Amino acid sequence: MKAMVYYGENDIRFEERDKPVIEQPTDAIIRMTKTTICGTDLGIWKGKNPEIAATTQAKTGAFNGRILGHEGIGIVEEVGSGVSHFKKGDKVIVSCVSRCGTCENCQKQLYAHCRNQGGWILGYMIDGTQAEYVRTPFADTSLYLLPQELNEDVAVLLSDALPTAHEIGVQYGNVKPGDSIAIVGAGPVGMGCVLTAQLYSPSEIIVVDMDENRLAMAKELGATHTINSAKEDAVKRILEITGGRGVDCAMEAVGVEATWNICQHVVKEGGHLANVGVHGKPVEFALEKLWIKNLTITTGLVNANTTGMLMKTCCSGKLPMEKMATHHFPFSELPKAYDVFKHAADEKAMKVIIDL
Amino acid sequence: MKAMVYYGENDIRFEERDKPVIEQPTDAIIRMTKTTICGTDLGIWKGKNPEIAATTQAKTGAFNGRILGHEGIGIVEEVGSGVSHFKKGDKVIVSCVSRCGTCENCQKQLYAHCRNQGGWILGYMIDGTQAEYVRTPFADTSLYLLPQELNEDVAVLLSDALPTAHEIGVQYGNVKPGDSIAIVGAGPVGMGCVLTAQLYSPSEIIVVDMDENRLAMAKELGATHTINSAKEDAVKRILEITGGRGVDCAMEAVGVEATWNICQHVVKEGGHLANVGVHGKPVEFALEKLWIKNLTITTGLVNANTTGMLMKTCCSGKLPMEKMATHHFPFSELPKAYDVFKHAADEKAMKVIIDL
Amino acid sequence: MKAMVYYGENDIRFEERDKPVIEQPTDAIIRMTKTTICGTDLGIWKGKNPEIAATTQAKTGAFNGRILGHEGIGIVEEVGSGVSHFKKGDKVIVSCVSRCGTCENCQKQLYAHCRNQGGWILGYMIDGTQAEYVRTPFADTSLYLLPQELNEDVAVLLSDALPTAHEIGVQYGNVKPGDSIAIVGAGPVGMGCVLTAQLYSPSEIIVVDMDENRLAMAKELGATHTINSAKEDAVKRILEITGGRGVDCAMEAVGVEATWNICQHVVKEGGHLANVGVHGKPVEFALEKLWIKNLTITTGLVNANTTGMLMKTCCSGKLPMEKMATHHFPFSELPKAYDVFKHAADEKAMKVIIDL
Amino acid sequence: MKAMVYYGENDIRFEERDKPVIEQPTDAIIRMTKTTICGTDLGIWKGKNPEIAATTQAKTGAFNGRILGHEGIGIVEEVGSGVSHFKKGDKVIVSCVSRCGTCENCQKQLYAHCRNQGGWILGYMIDGTQAEYVRTPFADTSLYLLPQELNEDVAVLLSDALPTAHEIGVQYGNVKPGDSIAIVGAGPVGMGCVLTAQLYSPSEIIVVDMDENRLAMAKELGATHTINSAKEDAVKRILEITGGRGVDCAMEAVGVEATWNICQHVVKEGGHLANVGVHGKPVEFALEKLWIKNLTITTGLVNANTTGMLMKTCCSGKLPMEKMATHHFPFSELPKAYDVFKHAADEKAMKVIIDL
Repeated sequence: MKAMVYYGENDIRFEERDKPVIEQPTDAIIRMTKTTICGTDLGIWKGKNPEIAATTQAKTGAFNGRILGHEGIGIVEEVGSGVSHFKKGDKVIVSCVSRCGTCENCQKQLYAHCRNQGGWILGYMIDGTQAEYVRTPFADTSLYLLPQELNEDVAVLLSDALPTAHEIGVQYGNVKPGDSIAIVGAGPVGMGCVLTAQLYSPSEIIVVDMDENRLAMAKELGATHTINSAKEDAVKRILEITGGRGVDCAMEAVGVEATWNICQHVVKEGGHLANVGVHGKPVEFALEKLWIKNLTITTGLVNANTTGMLMKTCCSGKLPMEKMATHHFPFSELPKAYDVFKHAADEKAMKVIIDL
Repeated sequence: MKAMVYYGENDIRFEERDKPVIEQPTDAIIRMTKTTICGTDLGIWKGKNPEIAATTQAKTGAFNGRILGHEGIGIVEEVGSGVSHFKKGDKVIVSCVSRCGTCENCQKQLYAHCRNQGGWILGYMIDGTQAEYVRTPFADTSLYLLPQELNEDVAVLLSDALPTAHEIGVQYGNVKPGDSIAIVGAGPVGMGCVLTAQLYSPSEIIVVDMDENRLAMAKELGATHTINSAKEDAVKRILEITGGRGVDCAMEAVGVEATWNICQHVVKEGGHLANVGVHGKPVEFALEKLWIKNLTITTGLVNANTTGMLMKTCCSGKLPMEKMATHHFPFSELPKAYDVFKHAADEKAMKVIIDL
Repeated sequence: MKAMVYYGENDIRFEERDKPVIEQPTDAIIRMTKTTICGTDLGIWKGKNPEIAATTQAKTGAFNGRILGHEGIGIVEEVGSGVSHFKKGDKVIVSCVSRCGTCENCQKQLYAHCRNQGGWILGYMIDGTQAEYVRTPFADTSLYLLPQELNEDVAVLLSDALPTAHEIGVQYGNVKPGDSIAIVGAGPVGMGCVLTAQLYSPSEIIVVDMDENRLAMAKELGATHTINSAKEDAVKRILEITGGRGVDCAMEAVGVEATWNICQHVVKEGGHLANVGVHGKPVEFALEKLWIKNLTITTGLVNANTTGMLMKTCCSGKLPMEKMATHHFPFSELPKAYDVFKHAADEKAMKVIIDL
Repeated sequence: MKAMVYYGENDIRFEERDKPVIEQPTDAIIRMTKTTICGTDLGIWKGKNPEIAATTQAKTGAFNGRILGHEGIGIVEEVGSGVSHFKKGDKVIVSCVSRCGTCENCQKQLYAHCRNQGGWILGYMIDGTQAEYVRTPFADTSLYLLPQELNEDVAVLLSDALPTAHEIGVQYGNVKPGDSIAIVGAGPVGMGCVLTAQLYSPSEIIVVDMDENRLAMAKELGATHTINSAKEDAVKRILEITGGRGVDCAMEAVGVEATWNICQHVVKEGGHLANVGVHGKPVEFALEKLWIKNLTITTGLVNANTTGMLMKTCCSGKLPMEKMATHHFPFSELPKAYDVFKHAADEKAMKVIIDL
């Protein structure tokens, strides 16, 4: 089968690989029908995750490449003897998080930190979804039956982008009806925050980014105010919009100190700062000002424990989730899709959908 | 009347002042019977709060000193026409937080941030409790009727030390039965954390400090493990104690980067870091490691919304709260009490109680 | 001034009364500009609340009638010396719940049970809002500044109907994105549940009533399914709609055993039953079937602690709240408005707004 | 092997049965070392659960008896190929609830309602623990590794009695520090409520029963007040003890209308009523009085999701859990143990432990 394989920094290859097989009774093999590219995949390509090769080498003595991708939908091709909820032919959403369901953390719904070789492993510690077929461990707890009425492009967003935005941004940020919220960063996950925040009816959704196209799109998806932080002082503007009070919740959806800084200086006393971005460096935390403010600051990797809930809200269809899918490519053009996504801002790309 | 008055850096005077009078209908005048000294009072003395003189000057054109103190118990001497729950002769606990009860924040129980000239103001923005008499604004919501069965030394701890420890440390830190917790800093508030955490039955209470006397006292008050961070690597030790997993909750009860650092590196995935210490400088926040850990980090000033709850648990008397009161002085020796408290570690002092 | 006064069973009179005066420093006098009639007012008229006369007689030795009404908006005419947040000329919403803000229950936000002569007293234990002027106790905590951008008919709903529906129905019922919910009874409060439930994005909103007009209106306001329980077996239908599983939350918004019975038999294991209706008789609770189902059943009178939150969501205006106001009458025709509201179903009336 | 087998009403036999074998890859076979008798087992004996025979007959065409028992500890004898957390020789606690861990309800931690043939099935729908060996389905999620430092009699209580009391009584009842609580019924589960409530430091624990021995034992285990409802009006007494206010939480731990009635009439406004008892008949619910009281009433079967938490608190050993185990019998005397437990009150029996 064809697959997009990571070999090392700046070395990914769209090449022929063996079709995966059932290894554990709880595995399933899925024939992918749609997949997509995540910002994390670009990061791997750029060399941010040397642990992929290192860990694999340490465990198995060799590293022969890793198929990328942790998102997508497909059709069940085969299930192991221990799989009870799925059968050949079922249309399914593949969750980016694999969960054993039985370890200490899984029993607390902290699936991101499954202690039994689960968590985020697809397209990272094991072969992923940018391929014709993928092996999904712990199939019973890591797949979702795709409802017929669900737009399939939206279904792809349920693998990672929407649950991450909803759980780590909106739920950890405790968004409530009437709230003022700020979302800093209007990439796919920030945009997912714009969308899923609306499930809780905040009054003001302020989106900050440096790209005008993305800000325009944020407005279409539900933002009430947008700020181009390349042109304006975002902190000052947010305080103006909120009558000097600050927001109830700020979500950091980039992963650098500049955006963290906007967030930490615009949250109202008693408010929430939900860090969603993946950071590569420490940040300065202004505790000399913030110790007194009764803030709640959260971090996290998605648990995917609200995937089912989101699937239902996507089916009832009140939010324009499908607008997130800006580009489509056939699987044979996956390398081209990578190029487009690499220049997402210029290409006005949010999510690129790959159809198999 | 006699009072301890702050004039500026290193200038506090035990001197004669006018007895306070009712200014607002919601005020009460309390004749103090016991007061105490807080670490914050020492900070003011050392010059950490120049805003006291500056703000007062700006508002009134002059600064003629400020009576210190925001803790203590006493007897109601007089109430304003708008006070309905207290009358002359009632024995009361004075809360360190004054709350109007009617502003947006007070209606959310975020009393620390009362927007109507309340919050922490006693001994800071208005004259405080280290005096024979004190005027308490918003008496109905800022005093507590002292139950007869309550040890009066413990009652003094209910003004600030115990509610701060309980709300900002234990409740924000989400301490639950069976949890492993670490408390970094064994001063009065850290010790209050050791005590009030036990209301929720954690299995392991690890206390970190650099003073052996305080660590010994922590053991007496309920710590299951103690670590002298001057002699041992606290992070390493905590990880050993918890089988490499880290704690469910770490409480920072000092207010410097070194203790913050211990805390941020010992919390388990999905755990809590409750910052209780008052910080004077920013800290480095290791988001490059912690973005993925599903942590909840909180900050805050006490709301005193659990004072009533704590009062009941102190009455039922299962925890050795009274051991916190290590020294007693008559009011006439208040300057000496300051000296002792200034050298608290050497003097083996935790809370010094001043009897009037 | 003119006012609608209750004297006893079937005896209400639209007559001349003295204008109210400030009695306590925390009082305000409001010149009403809009008021409305609540189902509870009809109940009083029909004689369901003999305690009104009895309690007043017991306290004061006489009962000279009680001005009805606990809803409406108006303009502040005068404030007592202890009122700090409002001044003459402010446009305000009058909350149906008066709250001292200082008693044990108010400090827990259980304002409905204010222990200091507050709670629901307007138009019940003291004169109410169906008059040209009303005295509102505890003005600082019981009035809301009316935002300019808010539709004034919707503002009237914020006195009681919407907060009751939101707090006792939707919040106590724990409505979440993706949920299936059933609302039994499509009167003003049930309809308020239909509206405010949507703040949390449930997937299915099933409304049960016996009046076709009301069911049609429920659909306009957001119901996804309606059931006429006079024509169909509501329990059976709800189970069909939910694939045999039952709903996550059922709200009882009538107050009789038949509707309670629908609710208790349609809630899924682990679900919620929020009783909003005012009951006159006990009901049978099928504990022999329900002991095992991990249900949460709630009851309650509105605390009005979410009035501010709802006001913000009404301003942002995504829900058709204003459709609730089906009829308008000038104040001089208040008796006629009572007649219309008495035959609400026939008259296709939901809320009748009285303009002064 | 020997086992206690139910054949029908009043027909249980201590007889020879075949040793169980692995049926599913997720099964384990446990050699029991301690078991016990639950009130539910007595109920089955008395004929309260004819569905046992009926369901089995319907499914398999025959009913050849069912081995009783859903509690106990033992040693893993054999595990299926899909079991990853346990191995032969491990000492384990058997949970009374079997959970697949993968169905919709298990993913919500509503394990009691596992939709995949789990839930309470041991000694009910499949053979149970009153035998030399037992087959436990879903071993990875339904067994707990027994810590060496744990008293083994206490470990037996972790199968059912303590988790039921803690989850359905104490947690659903929202017991908090300083609370006043009432526990109606001082059998094993009520007594478990007395014990586990103390993990949250309530101030007053009022226990109601009609047996003086049990009330005396309740005092030993931590009750602050006891009421013999055969001799006193329990409602009146509870109101006296609480200064006329009622309790924050009442727990019904019997399962009949009389005890339900005590509970529903003693809860304070805003309080909780946690029904723990298994009811055979409907009860009257005084909604005409309680609709206004902002109560939360809960029901439920144990999920056993706090078994691990309780295990840790039992290890730290501050509560006299072991006093619950009043009697010991060798396995060969299991019929005698049944006789004693059947007359538990006379025999001053709480839990009878059977040692194999």
